[in-house]
Amino acid sequence: MLDSIQEIAERNGVASATFSAIGAVKDATISFYDQMEKRYRDLRLDEPLEVLACMGNIGRLGRETIVHGHITLSDAKGQAYGGHLMRGTTVFAMEVVMTELKGIELRREFDSVTGLNQIKDLEDHTQI
Amino acid sequence: MLDSIQEIAERNGVASATFSAIGAVKDATISFYDQMEKRYRDLRLDEPLEVLACMGNIGRLGRETIVHGHITLSDAKGQAYGGHLMRGTTVFAMEVVMTELKGIELRREFDSVTGLNQIKDLEDHTQI
Amino acid sequence: MLDSIQEIAERNGVASATFSAIGAVKDATISFYDQMEKRYRDLRLDEPLEVLACMGNIGRLGRETIVHGHITLSDAKGQAYGGHLMRGTTVFAMEVVMTELKGIELRREFDSVTGLNQIKDLEDHTQI
Repeated sequence: MLDSIQEIAERNGVASATFSAIGAVKDATISFYDQMEKRYRDLRLDEPLEVLACMGNIGRLGRETIVHGHITLSDAKGQAYGGHLMRGTTVFAMEVVMTELKGIELRREFDSVTGLNQIKDLEDHTQI
Repeated sequence: MLDSIQEIAERNGVASATFSAIGAVKDATISFYDQMEKRYRDLRLDEPLEVLACMGNIGRLGRETIVHGHITLSDAKGQAYGGHLMRGTTVFAMEVVMTELKGIELRREFDSVTGLNQIKDLEDHTQI
Repeated sequence: MLDSIQEIAERNGVASATFSAIGAVKDATISFYDQMEKRYRDLRLDEPLEVLACMGNIGRLGRETIVHGHITLSDAKGQAYGGHLMRGTTVFAMEVVMTELKGIELRREFDSVTGLNQIKDLEDHTQI
């Protein structure tokens, strides 16, 4: 799913964008960011799931395209799960809305406080 | 809730749109799509719930208006649930943001691979 | 997190807007609206959590700026929780997309039926 979203962006020449998606996946790999140890811990959901929402953005880290998305999923009982969207999430069906940010460049830089590649140079808009 | 969203669209002459909503419902009917059996399985939540997010779109299947939404809900303990939004979900209070897609027509057609009425003719934008 | 979103709006002179956010928090205070008793019941989540989605809007109640957001969270096991976003939610990292509603004023007024300060004067768009 991550690669598919990236492919849509690249195929359409979109460098900076926000996106949201709903749909269904055959399985999912998500992660939880350990704020103390500053690393992602993977979680594997090996069953068909609804995608209740996947929200995020497309930007750049150096010359690399970065898709950053958080996904909310539900299982056959309606229970909801979620985390940071990782590679290894297989799309069954998906509807994506991608909104290009014209004139805005989402550039990421490593931030040592959080250990994350955070969006820079957008002034107040991301400084919360 | 589904009928209300459809009514807003029809009253404002909106044929294609995306929407998101937050609010609260008195009860909810949601469903999980069984990817093997290719049919929706209904789930009934018979209690007041917060609507954490409801995201989707409005399009057409032939001459029929189709509202497709996925909803994330939470109960009095903060536990989250969700699924495909079905008729039989009673609004208590709701705030909807509907964004008309001018010049874009969301038309659905039956897709035998998934068993779903999927959005067609939007080229790369939905091909994930 | 609520104050930070409000500060972004005020610093940029934004009176009416919609927003969405993803990220992570160190802890969270959320609430569930008791539809019978017409009051919010607070829930405290005292651990680091992913913000799967936070969706809402910025408007006014009299001369006061009101940030209304619903938040979906997940814990280290991927379990999802959520509710009405309250003060007392500490941001670890956050990416907010705020869309100013130019020419639209989101004004809230007390509604005795629900006990909520609901958005008024937007005609059909919020009347579901």
